[in-house]
Amino acid sequence: MGVFSQGFTAKTSKQVELVNITPTVKEIIAKSGVREGIVLVYVPHATAGLIVNENEPRLIKDFLDTLKTLIPWNKNYAHNQIDDNAASHLVNSIFGCSISFPLIEGKLSLGTWQTIFLVELDGPRTRQIYVKIVGE
Amino acid sequence: MGVFSQGFTAKTSKQVELVNITPTVKEIIAKSGVREGIVLVYVPHATAGLIVNENEPRLIKDFLDTLKTLIPWNKNYAHNQIDDNAASHLVNSIFGCSISFPLIEGKLSLGTWQTIFLVELDGPRTRQIYVKIVGE
Amino acid sequence: MGVFSQGFTAKTSKQVELVNITPTVKEIIAKSGVREGIVLVYVPHATAGLIVNENEPRLIKDFLDTLKTLIPWNKNYAHNQIDDNAASHLVNSIFGCSISFPLIEGKLSLGTWQTIFLVELDGPRTRQIYVKIVGE
Repeated sequence: MGVFSQGFTAKTSKQVELVNITPTVKEIIAKSGVREGIVLVYVPHATAGLIVNENEPRLIKDFLDTLKTLIPWNKNYAHNQIDDNAASHLVNSIFGCSISFPLIEGKLSLGTWQTIFLVELDGPRTRQIYVKIVGE
Repeated sequence: MGVFSQGFTAKTSKQVELVNITPTVKEIIAKSGVREGIVLVYVPHATAGLIVNENEPRLIKDFLDTLKTLIPWNKNYAHNQIDDNAASHLVNSIFGCSISFPLIEGKLSLGTWQTIFLVELDGPRTRQIYVKIVGE
Repeated sequence: MGVFSQGFTAKTSKQVELVNITPTVKEIIAKSGVREGIVLVYVPHATAGLIVNENEPRLIKDFLDTLKTLIPWNKNYAHNQIDDNAASHLVNSIFGCSISFPLIEGKLSLGTWQTIFLVELDGPRTRQIYVKIVGE
């Protein structure tokens, strides 16, 4: 049995932004030596999350626009009385902070059009990402 | 290898409500003796789900308000002809019923602002929560 | 320790559709011989996802209607300039492509009202689904 764990950080440069973290996740998998199992990617934040989608600049623009349509950004939220980031928290709960991936023959089984993105919702900040691998 | 499993229930008191289940999840982890791995928290319901977010009363109010903006509550849904809870089901699919967490050095690796909440969408009821731990 | 892996395909027949994949997931679990652990169901696509909800025809209709309310289908998305499916990608990120389930006494611990659905958002196509089981 193999359990492997590694964290890394991603520096974001905007308030709302997608950051491709796939290359680092793949490096950690290669280093782990685990060949078959489950790879958990987890973000320990309440105003940053994770999605898997196509890495296409126009789609990324559509995604960032859509966030603000789903959750109006400057509404009179109660939480904004103490910290001006209620919308960031609310969007975070829609997309979530935890995604598991199959690990097959030592490889992350992402589809052709799948890229793992950190979703920064209240940046710029330095964000933590954990990768946990369980398998053999 | 360690596989550990335990269920528990949460009694909800309102139709729509967030219930902090983090303390019980932590107790189950301590009891399991597993030190490194993945902790899966799962709700076997179609009108209750899970989120991870900040435990701040005003934010919780904003979250509960937002549910009803995302999914209008009293719309003329087809499912309401047989059971008056279509909106509860629809919101459930947005937030989901399954979240996995890294287990590192015997601890749930939640961030400072992360609390695990059961999302009651059709209460009051007694809800089941499963915790499954795989690791070593 | 047991790690078991199997993929299967689902043929969809419409542009937007839910396909019940629960029976196949259960068959794969039975075949695996693993009794206790975590079952990961994963879709390696960016315009198809997964949800767990009640298998009731009127609710399915409500769900498919709701997708198009959440994410307007024919908006002037930037990604549509190169591939006319931006809305399919955006909806995919709301529901996600990865759900983990507890495996208890050899059984998928779905609740009474829970069915696992593939969410086709840009069909008809043949979609891939991976099932990865880690446990003992």
